Amino acid sequence: MAADSERQTRNFAALSGTNLDVVVCGSATAVLLFSGYWPVMAASLVVLTAGGELSLIVPKDELELAKNTSTARLIPYEPAGLHTLDPPLQRLDDPLRRVLKALIGSGARVGVQLAEGMQPVSYVAGTQFRCALPNLLEELFPNAGIVSCDDLIQSLGPVKTSIELKQMQRSCEVAAVGFAQAEACIRPGLREAEIAANVNAAFASAPLAGGLERSYGFFFCMSGPNSAKAAGAYARTRQRVVEEGDLVMIHANTCADGYWTDITRTYTAGAASAKQKEMRVAIAEARLAALSSIKPGAKADAVDHAARSVMKAHGFGEAFKHATGHGVGFAAADPNERPRIHPSSPDVLEVGMTFNVEPAAYFDGYGGMRHCDLVAVTADGAHVLTEF
Amino acid sequence: MAADSERQTRNFAALSGTNLDVVVCGSATAVLLFSGYWPVMAASLVVLTAGGELSLIVPKDELELAKNTSTARLIPYEPAGLHTLDPPLQRLDDPLRRVLKALIGSGARVGVQLAEGMQPVSYVAGTQFRCALPNLLEELFPNAGIVSCDDLIQSLGPVKTSIELKQMQRSCEVAAVGFAQAEACIRPGLREAEIAANVNAAFASAPLAGGLERSYGFFFCMSGPNSAKAAGAYARTRQRVVEEGDLVMIHANTCADGYWTDITRTYTAGAASAKQKEMRVAIAEARLAALSSIKPGAKADAVDHAARSVMKAHGFGEAFKHATGHGVGFAAADPNERPRIHPSSPDVLEVGMTFNVEPAAYFDGYGGMRHCDLVAVTADGAHVLTEF
Repeated sequence: MAADSERQTRNFAALSGTNLDVVVCGSATAVLLFSGYWPVMAASLVVLTAGGELSLIVPKDELELAKNTSTARLIPYEPAGLHTLDPPLQRLDDPLRRVLKALIGSGARVGVQLAEGMQPVSYVAGTQFRCALPNLLEELFPNAGIVSCDDLIQSLGPVKTSIELKQMQRSCEVAAVGFAQAEACIRPGLREAEIAANVNAAFASAPLAGGLERSYGFFFCMSGPNSAKAAGAYARTRQRVVEEGDLVMIHANTCADGYWTDITRTYTAGAASAKQKEMRVAIAEARLAALSSIKPGAKADAVDHAARSVMKAHGFGEAFKHATGHGVGFAAADPNERPRIHPSSPDVLEVGMTFNVEPAAYFDGYGGMRHCDLVAVTADGAHVLTEF
Repeated sequence: MAADSERQTRNFAALSGTNLDVVVCGSATAVLLFSGYWPVMAASLVVLTAGGELSLIVPKDELELAKNTSTARLIPYEPAGLHTLDPPLQRLDDPLRRVLKALIGSGARVGVQLAEGMQPVSYVAGTQFRCALPNLLEELFPNAGIVSCDDLIQSLGPVKTSIELKQMQRSCEVAAVGFAQAEACIRPGLREAEIAANVNAAFASAPLAGGLERSYGFFFCMSGPNSAKAAGAYARTRQRVVEEGDLVMIHANTCADGYWTDITRTYTAGAASAKQKEMRVAIAEARLAALSSIKPGAKADAVDHAARSVMKAHGFGEAFKHATGHGVGFAAADPNERPRIHPSSPDVLEVGMTFNVEPAAYFDGYGGMRHCDLVAVTADGAHVLTEF
């Protein structure tokens, strides 16, 4: 991957605007944001100094992947091995001392993630540093201040660079394979688990788009009354058998080298009923209203309002149970990621922001319909990354 | 699920053996360990007081799942909604105050997870509390001591109760479907990604075993030279086309309601070469040597030694690049989970411990073979949970 100098310049400028001398971050998302590398085991640490030096401490067996995606100075270490049984953090102690040696002993202000947050998955299991990283930094910097860099990170993620936008576009294109399969395979008589497995398999077995290292994802299937439960914070595939006339919702969160999608399409198994047609019309109009209201400087609550008033006009105000969208890209499924397209959101749209637009209607015991697109804000308005 | 009174008694006794007045934990694994519930978004908190009161603060839309698997007192809360845009932790503040009200204002000692650890995934994205939970508890308990309960949790996980062992057995049985499919579908000409997708689909579309709420998992395929890279900490499916005579490794970490497996089988695409046959014999003998050495009171390093000396005797000492095993169950893929079946391990086996036994031989540029079983320690020795 080419160096994302736009990102590096922006990160450095933002760090310079704080009173921090260095940031040390271990969440996979922060590592990606600063270094361009999406860690596997979340056992990497990124270090950016106010002098502009960018280092990535990375497990030895992730070195090749890191080389292919990051231009940071790479410091490999061995997190586990046959020859020692050190606690994991002890293995990070040495490389961290080496990277930070110019600052050790000084009264540096060291930024670290302290606040809670939603972290998308990078592997079967990942490291959570909890308070161990700030505690280790306090040992290394007894004269220093260990302070939060959470606001800095939160401010850097929402606006994507042009390279990141290309990555997200590619991530959406890979996901499209799953939705094409969904359209082809959904029919009455299949269990949700069978449909989801079929869709996931089409997505996962598709040839990898050029330049991508890792692509993986989660497609969920929720049918009939179960699709109404998709109003909640999470999707869940169950064993229900799809019946003629059911709404069948396919929800995807997929990842290409750390750049996430959040996409939903809703199908009908068989012919659509009058109610389903009404829902579809309302959602399509609400989507267009939201898209038309998106432009740099627009208030996020106005975008929510644009979609919500259409749903209300169609009599689906109560049925539209959640916000119109939230930030996506570094985040996968986090309603609190900026910009929050929510009735109470204070956020203001900027060029390069990426978020989902997900008008929906849910009726308990009957079903739900949602159409969730991923969009980017351009100078000309909304650019839809999921035109399929 | 029936109440696991064995687990509850054991947790309570262990807490009573500390000087803690209460533990408050948010990691999905700790929530499962204390309450029996495997959270979806990792936004639940479990609270166990030294008086024996067990509460689970759980997102409203996970309440049904929690009811089906936990006998804790359930306190639902709404982590996100249309009517407020509070920060997530603020939404936990109220329910936490309610649960802890008898202790607030006292000089209670409050245990919380501070150390880093590996956390298996429960959804596309999950909450990481970092330092926010201890900080919130410090606000709630200005007179109290907020201290680590990491040792307590680490001590409780390795030995499973009989109900947990049944859950793990069931989790292994579900995974078996994937391996049956692997055996049926592996052939030269297929890409690793196609094989993995095929295996994952068979696993994911299988009817759910009775009593299970959620089953999901990750099967990886690594062939030829790529299978040698499986010596590292993580598995990775790539786009390589399987060739005649290749070693083809299928590695699985699967989850049934929070109970994880860690299983590997290695196949040959076509007829096995003499070298592959030798590897297979050595690994089978090393496996048996390890299994025979497993009994209550046995030292974990002796189990590693039993397997390693067989590999050495066959000339595969150098090729067996990692430890013989590590704890599995609450953990999925963590080399530091007790008991560590490692040459330097101080751990001693006890009845109810579960871990993997994974003798292997890896040759860079050629390939790797690993046979990884999940076993439980019984009074009579090793019980293999993956007899397939």
